[in-house]
Amino acid sequence: MRVLVANPNASEAITEVCAKLARAAASPGTEVIGWTNREGPPVIDSFYGDYSAGRPLVRALVGFRPRPDAVVLAGFGNYGTAAAKEALDIPVLGMAEAAMALAAPFCHRFVILTTSRRMVPYTEDLVAALGFADRCRAVRSIELPPVGVDQPAGGRVVEALTEVVHRIETESLADLVILGGSRLSPFAERLRLYSRLPILEPVACAVQMVEAVVRLGLRQSKIGKYAPPPLPLADYG
Amino acid sequence: MRVLVANPNASEAITEVCAKLARAAASPGTEVIGWTNREGPPVIDSFYGDYSAGRPLVRALVGFRPRPDAVVLAGFGNYGTAAAKEALDIPVLGMAEAAMALAAPFCHRFVILTTSRRMVPYTEDLVAALGFADRCRAVRSIELPPVGVDQPAGGRVVEALTEVVHRIETESLADLVILGGSRLSPFAERLRLYSRLPILEPVACAVQMVEAVVRLGLRQSKIGKYAPPPLPLADYG
Amino acid sequence: MRVLVANPNASEAITEVCAKLARAAASPGTEVIGWTNREGPPVIDSFYGDYSAGRPLVRALVGFRPRPDAVVLAGFGNYGTAAAKEALDIPVLGMAEAAMALAAPFCHRFVILTTSRRMVPYTEDLVAALGFADRCRAVRSIELPPVGVDQPAGGRVVEALTEVVHRIETESLADLVILGGSRLSPFAERLRLYSRLPILEPVACAVQMVEAVVRLGLRQSKIGKYAPPPLPLADYG
Amino acid sequence: MRVLVANPNASEAITEVCAKLARAAASPGTEVIGWTNREGPPVIDSFYGDYSAGRPLVRALVGFRPRPDAVVLAGFGNYGTAAAKEALDIPVLGMAEAAMALAAPFCHRFVILTTSRRMVPYTEDLVAALGFADRCRAVRSIELPPVGVDQPAGGRVVEALTEVVHRIETESLADLVILGGSRLSPFAERLRLYSRLPILEPVACAVQMVEAVVRLGLRQSKIGKYAPPPLPLADYG
Amino acid sequence: MRVLVANPNASEAITEVCAKLARAAASPGTEVIGWTNREGPPVIDSFYGDYSAGRPLVRALVGFRPRPDAVVLAGFGNYGTAAAKEALDIPVLGMAEAAMALAAPFCHRFVILTTSRRMVPYTEDLVAALGFADRCRAVRSIELPPVGVDQPAGGRVVEALTEVVHRIETESLADLVILGGSRLSPFAERLRLYSRLPILEPVACAVQMVEAVVRLGLRQSKIGKYAPPPLPLADYG
Amino acid sequence: MRVLVANPNASEAITEVCAKLARAAASPGTEVIGWTNREGPPVIDSFYGDYSAGRPLVRALVGFRPRPDAVVLAGFGNYGTAAAKEALDIPVLGMAEAAMALAAPFCHRFVILTTSRRMVPYTEDLVAALGFADRCRAVRSIELPPVGVDQPAGGRVVEALTEVVHRIETESLADLVILGGSRLSPFAERLRLYSRLPILEPVACAVQMVEAVVRLGLRQSKIGKYAPPPLPLADYG
Repeated sequence: MRVLVANPNASEAITEVCAKLARAAASPGTEVIGWTNREGPPVIDSFYGDYSAGRPLVRALVGFRPRPDAVVLAGFGNYGTAAAKEALDIPVLGMAEAAMALAAPFCHRFVILTTSRRMVPYTEDLVAALGFADRCRAVRSIELPPVGVDQPAGGRVVEALTEVVHRIETESLADLVILGGSRLSPFAERLRLYSRLPILEPVACAVQMVEAVVRLGLRQSKIGKYAPPPLPLADYG
Repeated sequence: MRVLVANPNASEAITEVCAKLARAAASPGTEVIGWTNREGPPVIDSFYGDYSAGRPLVRALVGFRPRPDAVVLAGFGNYGTAAAKEALDIPVLGMAEAAMALAAPFCHRFVILTTSRRMVPYTEDLVAALGFADRCRAVRSIELPPVGVDQPAGGRVVEALTEVVHRIETESLADLVILGGSRLSPFAERLRLYSRLPILEPVACAVQMVEAVVRLGLRQSKIGKYAPPPLPLADYG
Repeated sequence: MRVLVANPNASEAITEVCAKLARAAASPGTEVIGWTNREGPPVIDSFYGDYSAGRPLVRALVGFRPRPDAVVLAGFGNYGTAAAKEALDIPVLGMAEAAMALAAPFCHRFVILTTSRRMVPYTEDLVAALGFADRCRAVRSIELPPVGVDQPAGGRVVEALTEVVHRIETESLADLVILGGSRLSPFAERLRLYSRLPILEPVACAVQMVEAVVRLGLRQSKIGKYAPPPLPLADYG
Repeated sequence: MRVLVANPNASEAITEVCAKLARAAASPGTEVIGWTNREGPPVIDSFYGDYSAGRPLVRALVGFRPRPDAVVLAGFGNYGTAAAKEALDIPVLGMAEAAMALAAPFCHRFVILTTSRRMVPYTEDLVAALGFADRCRAVRSIELPPVGVDQPAGGRVVEALTEVVHRIETESLADLVILGGSRLSPFAERLRLYSRLPILEPVACAVQMVEAVVRLGLRQSKIGKYAPPPLPLADYG
Repeated sequence: MRVLVANPNASEAITEVCAKLARAAASPGTEVIGWTNREGPPVIDSFYGDYSAGRPLVRALVGFRPRPDAVVLAGFGNYGTAAAKEALDIPVLGMAEAAMALAAPFCHRFVILTTSRRMVPYTEDLVAALGFADRCRAVRSIELPPVGVDQPAGGRVVEALTEVVHRIETESLADLVILGGSRLSPFAERLRLYSRLPILEPVACAVQMVEAVVRLGLRQSKIGKYAPPPLPLADYG
Repeated sequence: MRVLVANPNASEAITEVCAKLARAAASPGTEVIGWTNREGPPVIDSFYGDYSAGRPLVRALVGFRPRPDAVVLAGFGNYGTAAAKEALDIPVLGMAEAAMALAAPFCHRFVILTTSRRMVPYTEDLVAALGFADRCRAVRSIELPPVGVDQPAGGRVVEALTEVVHRIETESLADLVILGGSRLSPFAERLRLYSRLPILEPVACAVQMVEAVVRLGLRQSKIGKYAPPPLPLADYG
């Protein structure tokens, strides 16, 4: 099975990180193809980021050859997930929806950690749009500097994440944590050393879940919401 | 006051229709500037349409000179409304949210009419995202042919709309109708002849509501969700 | 356009304050008529207050001559708003519903400040009844003394409000504040000096919004919930 | 135990009906005192009716001597229920909330039957305000003529009710019916002959439930929402 | 009237406590029969506890002779409440649903106190399943040691409960407390000495409420959800 | 990987059907072990069925040797799913929650088909308990005779299912169907021949999803809701 792991932003470094996580998570026999949305924004840190990413992302996915068996969208947001599901007739799965769907049967309430206070309302909207608001206790954030600025050392990020996770455990009675941003994904493994709560890393969740969907012969329903756009894609400009 | 009525799609004909409705609705002293998203899609009939429209729309709005006092987004959808609110520091108001906000104090439950069965789930998502799900009894549709195909005569459209409105009144105990698509807006006036229910035409609602907001000195809160994107817009590619 | 700004309580001082705020907010050409519900209670600080205010309020509004073009109900509560909408066939708009409807498109989540801890559950019920519970992060209060008792100096009230607003900004990730009581309305302007969050003063919101509604030719739907009471008003005793 | 069954409207005939139903439902040792809100409206068929009824109702209840042990409000609506709970320190229970609270543990979803199409939105608001929206499958109506107009024969009303109940059973999978109006209460017994679904008659429910509350030494919490109004009642005018 | 107060666990001591509370709450003429689920678990402190208790509980209730007029399930959980309602054609009422139904008309928001942090998610699920989530401000816990371990002195438990109740009053604006576990029920009376909030003891609530239901001639609707299981009970093994 | 497919009822025939579906769905290298809850009921068609099944099911799962890597619960209900998650420290996944979690990212709204009208409220409760109520348009039923009675020919069942699915497509705008009962699972493949909507067969969904969970190193969070029961299992009797 060939799974395209599509990074909606233009950062090759993030693509590499995601592809590595995806490969580590993939089953034997699954080929992971990393892809970077080079015409997209350097990072998706805003609604504007979403709309910068969406069109080139979907156009490229549709034209990608040889066609993969499924697509994982490796960003924790809403940069055209539904548009990709419309435009493609192979399974398309966003890493946010994969993580929440996998979390649902295995916890009481989850918490999502995001990369900055700014992304909290954005992420709250995402959770609601995906229908998981009742299962999400809260969205919390650490404060990563914007992309392009000097990043803190990994150890410092893990410390900040650990602190928030401990507070979650003590105060909110949530029992599972989802890392809500591909920039946080690389820290999942280290964070697990310091936490008793399960830590979901969404790229891995999405790869495994989309594999399952392919094996089941499923894809997004093409009757209704995700029917192909009425016009040929090229006509949308 | 100068209000930019921005048509998110590339159809000049729709822009003209919207600008005309906007001018008819505007207060004396309000100048309505019609604008067409020429780099956008010919119609927004899908999620892919949304993501085709969003980036050029926001980029153009930010660069528009002389700067208007407010922007009305003249499409009944989610083609970057939040992104425009982030990127701009003048009031930005979508016609869908204007219509629902105006409807709320003046009815028990509203119904939204849309242009095709295909747009029903799309519109249900929109209503939920804007927080009006509890006030919306249902989304119903007539069936307009896709843009580019021969359109039915206006009388036939009004008939179809009238029929749905009558069914709404009888069956659903909704007491107000919102026309959910700029392609339906021109029929508002004629439809009112055949219906006892108030018919909201969203372009007019948005123009009047954004005038109110300008006079009140308000705009979207720039603290939190709609704070400017962290990077300069040009850096998003 | 003639807008009747009806204070549901019997305090002329509050009427003056509201009329002044209304005039400052009204468009040129809008005449604001302040009116006091002299047969109503001195203040609406309870459910009992609501029911003391409602009947004389609606009776007087129906008989008011010359008839205004619209009515703004200048109290942040539920003292017969729906009854007035039934009984009148001109637009009737409560200041609470106006503020929430205007806030909706311009923030992520709002907070309502009220005049005492006692009014918090009252206001939570109001928010839910108007359908805005999903958009309201919390209702918070300062603690004004009851009407009739010596009032704190304005500066002290502004300080108390500022403190709550700062706590809101830090803790709750709400991004807009609504002043939930006509006794708080006069402090809006000074409070804005100390806050980065937009502060909505509901009398102004209601005046502007009802002007919009009049210009649009709208009013509450008279089919269904707000149909006229079945008996002549006088028959209700 | 003395239970005051307060009819919020001015119709002695309705009071008699309610008192009779109450007496039939009361436990031995419970004295039922029927009371008519003579200063209230002849019927509560609208929001205006609510606000006509509320003030005289609460004033009279507060002054009633000798003081009863509890009050049942014998109207299916919201004509000052919360105001009475504030103003009194004995248990106050509305017949609508009693019926829904009793129904909750004994069915999956209930349906409320009301007296006219006009009262459907009114009743939907009531259900939501009382927090039972998730348990209520629908509000349905027959069409009684307004009070004062010739009423249909009882048999005809029972037929109309029976027909709706049968439709409920077949179509909606609701499994319990609440009669939502004191004008419907007298038909409960006959309706039960024709229906397999339990039919709740709210006056009886309220009498039994308030007896339970008195025996338990409970009443509405006077800390918070139902604390006494800040001013002496007489000061509310 | 004969009311069977069925303790779903095997602890005779708890049965005695519950029967005593039930007798104190019952009306004259009501005979309370305490019954212990001797084949059930020693305590219900988990979902596994629920499923250990349910089958022997229902089997015994069905076979109980002479048949009582109603059954109160004296555990604050979900150990087969719906199964008992299916299997029996006399009224069956759980003490959790009784307490919440009685609380609803008499408070704004209630809080449930449970016996350990472990039971908080369990209880949150229970509240949601019974349809009272909108009325429940929070589930809070003290920390009782597991059954079988040395228990703290009663005074210490009352202190812990008092402390939580005071925090509830100050912080959460809840205005009523439900004791969420039969192990907490004996402390209700002493706790009331230290709290202004009404404290609901669910065994008493259930006895009074089920008496009301019997007098009203009601029981769970046997049409639909609580219809008898399709096979004879013995066939379920 | 060894996956135990546990049929909560005592029917070997159903176990065989489920095991066959599970093997067809499993990845190479996954060993599927069918297991029958011989001490359980012959069918789970009621809440009483749930509580008959739960205790022996969990006891047997805990003692099963050699220990599998994960457990799939092959019944579409709530016969102790949470209890099994508490008692075991390997992943436990019910087929209902698996199907809904997999459906969520791939449709707008799903419909669940169940085996009889009787199971509709049961299934509505299940959907709500799992947190998917917002995504479920409706629960619909065909009418299979009870187990033990002569069953209709497979073709007839497929016809009945097809008819309901067509009605769903036309009327409800749902875009995906979940077969809600292991008795319906065998018909999935034939039903797909007659429907454009995706048909989810939950056994297959659960096997694939639990494989994913095992590969990801996940299981139910053991902190909080699913922590082991406080007492040794044997002590629960």
